[in-house]
Amino acid sequence: LRRGAITNLSKMLGRMHPADAARVITHLSSPKEKREVFELVRGEAKRGQVLSELNGDSIQQVLADLLHSDIAWLLKDLGPDDVAYILGFLPEERGKDILALMKTEDSTEVADILKYPKDTAGGIMTTEFFSLPEDATAQEAIRRLQQATDAEMVFYIYVTDKDEHLVGVLSLRQLLTVPPATPLKNIMMRDVMSVAVDMDQEEVARQVASYNLLAIPVVEKDGKLAGIITVDDVVDVIREEATEDMLKMAGAIEEDSVSKSSSFGAAKLRLPWLFTNLVGSLLSGAILWYFRMTLQEVVAIVSFIPVIAAMGGNVGLQSSTLIIRGLATGVVELSDVRTVFFREVKVGLLMGLACGVMLTLVGWAWHQAFLGMVVGTSLVIAFLVSTSMATIMPVVLKRMGVDPAVAAGPFVTTANDITGITIYLSLATLFLDHLR
Amino acid sequence: LRRGAITNLSKMLGRMHPADAARVITHLSSPKEKREVFELVRGEAKRGQVLSELNGDSIQQVLADLLHSDIAWLLKDLGPDDVAYILGFLPEERGKDILALMKTEDSTEVADILKYPKDTAGGIMTTEFFSLPEDATAQEAIRRLQQATDAEMVFYIYVTDKDEHLVGVLSLRQLLTVPPATPLKNIMMRDVMSVAVDMDQEEVARQVASYNLLAIPVVEKDGKLAGIITVDDVVDVIREEATEDMLKMAGAIEEDSVSKSSSFGAAKLRLPWLFTNLVGSLLSGAILWYFRMTLQEVVAIVSFIPVIAAMGGNVGLQSSTLIIRGLATGVVELSDVRTVFFREVKVGLLMGLACGVMLTLVGWAWHQAFLGMVVGTSLVIAFLVSTSMATIMPVVLKRMGVDPAVAAGPFVTTANDITGITIYLSLATLFLDHLR
Repeated sequence: LRRGAITNLSKMLGRMHPADAARVITHLSSPKEKREVFELVRGEAKRGQVLSELNGDSIQQVLADLLHSDIAWLLKDLGPDDVAYILGFLPEERGKDILALMKTEDSTEVADILKYPKDTAGGIMTTEFFSLPEDATAQEAIRRLQQATDAEMVFYIYVTDKDEHLVGVLSLRQLLTVPPATPLKNIMMRDVMSVAVDMDQEEVARQVASYNLLAIPVVEKDGKLAGIITVDDVVDVIREEATEDMLKMAGAIEEDSVSKSSSFGAAKLRLPWLFTNLVGSLLSGAILWYFRMTLQEVVAIVSFIPVIAAMGGNVGLQSSTLIIRGLATGVVELSDVRTVFFREVKVGLLMGLACGVMLTLVGWAWHQAFLGMVVGTSLVIAFLVSTSMATIMPVVLKRMGVDPAVAAGPFVTTANDITGITIYLSLATLFLDHLR
Repeated sequence: LRRGAITNLSKMLGRMHPADAARVITHLSSPKEKREVFELVRGEAKRGQVLSELNGDSIQQVLADLLHSDIAWLLKDLGPDDVAYILGFLPEERGKDILALMKTEDSTEVADILKYPKDTAGGIMTTEFFSLPEDATAQEAIRRLQQATDAEMVFYIYVTDKDEHLVGVLSLRQLLTVPPATPLKNIMMRDVMSVAVDMDQEEVARQVASYNLLAIPVVEKDGKLAGIITVDDVVDVIREEATEDMLKMAGAIEEDSVSKSSSFGAAKLRLPWLFTNLVGSLLSGAILWYFRMTLQEVVAIVSFIPVIAAMGGNVGLQSSTLIIRGLATGVVELSDVRTVFFREVKVGLLMGLACGVMLTLVGWAWHQAFLGMVVGTSLVIAFLVSTSMATIMPVVLKRMGVDPAVAAGPFVTTANDITGITIYLSLATLFLDHLR
């Protein structure tokens, strides 16, 4: 970077929201540039915020050369959930060393979060919430609120009993509308929604989204209030999970963003699915080879191999995408499976008939009527098989505890290709006398 | 429904959150059942809330037989954004008649929202926000707050000048921590983020998500404060947009849920993509037919047609999914295109080499070494072409103002199948002497 550019950039970064500065840094290609630009952000508070908005790779690159004490200094004003997020990307030893350099009260809170898996309620909660005992009065609550500077998002005030069990909730506005001496237990809502520390983050997101909450309290097994999850973190979870599902369905498993990891790393992550696919389509090839006599006798048959192979897979992809996304958002439940199954098969049949008739006509015009009929019939059967498999597979996987998104791409598509080709060539061989 | 079941269900519905009751109704299959269960929800306030959580089809079914005056009665306690959402699914005439039966102040607010397209900031905002003039004092603000019963989500207090232009924002907590006589203009933050009424809802969602906001104000062209969008509506937008993109990529355009619309309707919506695909794969078939002499001379060539056809499409799908999702979440920007392009092509080359070597060996072991080499080479070229096209297409479409997700499925996949097969059979024909 040239001298003039540095002054300009430094000014621009000063005016930017930390999230925007983080985006600028993420989009730089070399780790060296990322470090340089990060260093230009002024003030460790803002540097810390920028850090909390970066993705894993950028965090690793930016912090690579920093001393443990410098990192601890950057993290000092962040919430424990953000610190846990950042340290989660560093080697465990390094994380511990950095925590040891922070204030004890801060580091224990962070350690509390780090002990839960990253994708559970405990792993994404913050421990800096605002709670009060049930005997406190509205006036005391307001006074405490004026002093609490580091609690996140105080619109809900959580009320606990003497054992720190969550017993109620009230809104900041309710406090303002009652006489000052009213005890909280008289005005709080006792029916509080909460989630368990070990609940999967996707399920947490589903609850917060469907009940339109701003935050949800997280409780330990014994009912003790452990933390809260705020809606802004839920928004991140929802976006991430959708991205993950899409990538999984395309067989680019777990590669979380385009411009970061090395090409080798990316290739390594994407290859397993391609290999599955390679084996699957070689099987289709073996089936063609097995029927080579048929193909040699009536070469016109080859004209429809791509149609049969592609269409079954595509119809299946439509169905499985609907089911997978439906299961993820809660629109489809496991109990609906029967209804959904019959509906998809019916849709498959309708589309199969439409495409089948069209293919029959094409086959007739292009080669001969009987070949057209064989192709059309094969297509209808292939559609029925595809939609059935595409509906059942994700459900079976979900029941087995496997993420249904993984399956959509590789298995269903390949399996559909194979069955489609088998049906087509078997029918063609069966009626070979009419095709000659 | 039997008598006993009705009593039970009615009790259960009484205890349920409106969102859960709505989910129960959505999952019923017949419109008649939906109406019956909806009628069992007690109290028009709760019935209204349930209504606001239903999807379009269910709203239409549930309201089908109701009088305009009954519907107006159900809507009377809802926020104007929810009323606008519900009326948006009814025929325009009916909506107008219902609005005419509501209180004038409510109906003008709803009409204000309805005049904006559904997927813009204006269409999803609520007009029931809490704003105060800049000369008001903290004490006045608190008093006004105690009276405001219908404003949504008061954690941010928006401050306007005498022309109702948005000039600042402050948090409810800030109000509590200053002397009562302080005018708002002394404590407010002047640098307010806001969005224009005509901004696309996806862009609004992106901003709220990346700046971790709870609500964002919506302003008219002249800077007048028109409404606010709260984070719970943003969460819905994010989920919907992700679903839409996934379905578009699978060619199941605009079908928003599995269990609702008729099978005929669904088939009609999904068929266009299948027809595109049909035409595309018939073209692949025509290419095979064109090269029929080659195929008849060396029938072993057919064994690799499925591999070549499938693999190019799949590699392309990986790349285009990454780009499309990246563009949607803002991880990839149009300015990054060059970097992303070269990276994807490099990844494609690496994976092509890995799969190509494997295919060469398979071809050698199965048929003969030279055929293996032809297949392997074709695959590498096909991968390079696929990744290039898959990266460029979404970007070109985005630049043209078309949603990139639409393109991923149909065009890229089909185009890749065709090029793959053309490359393979051209090479095979070229080196036919060595394959015999």
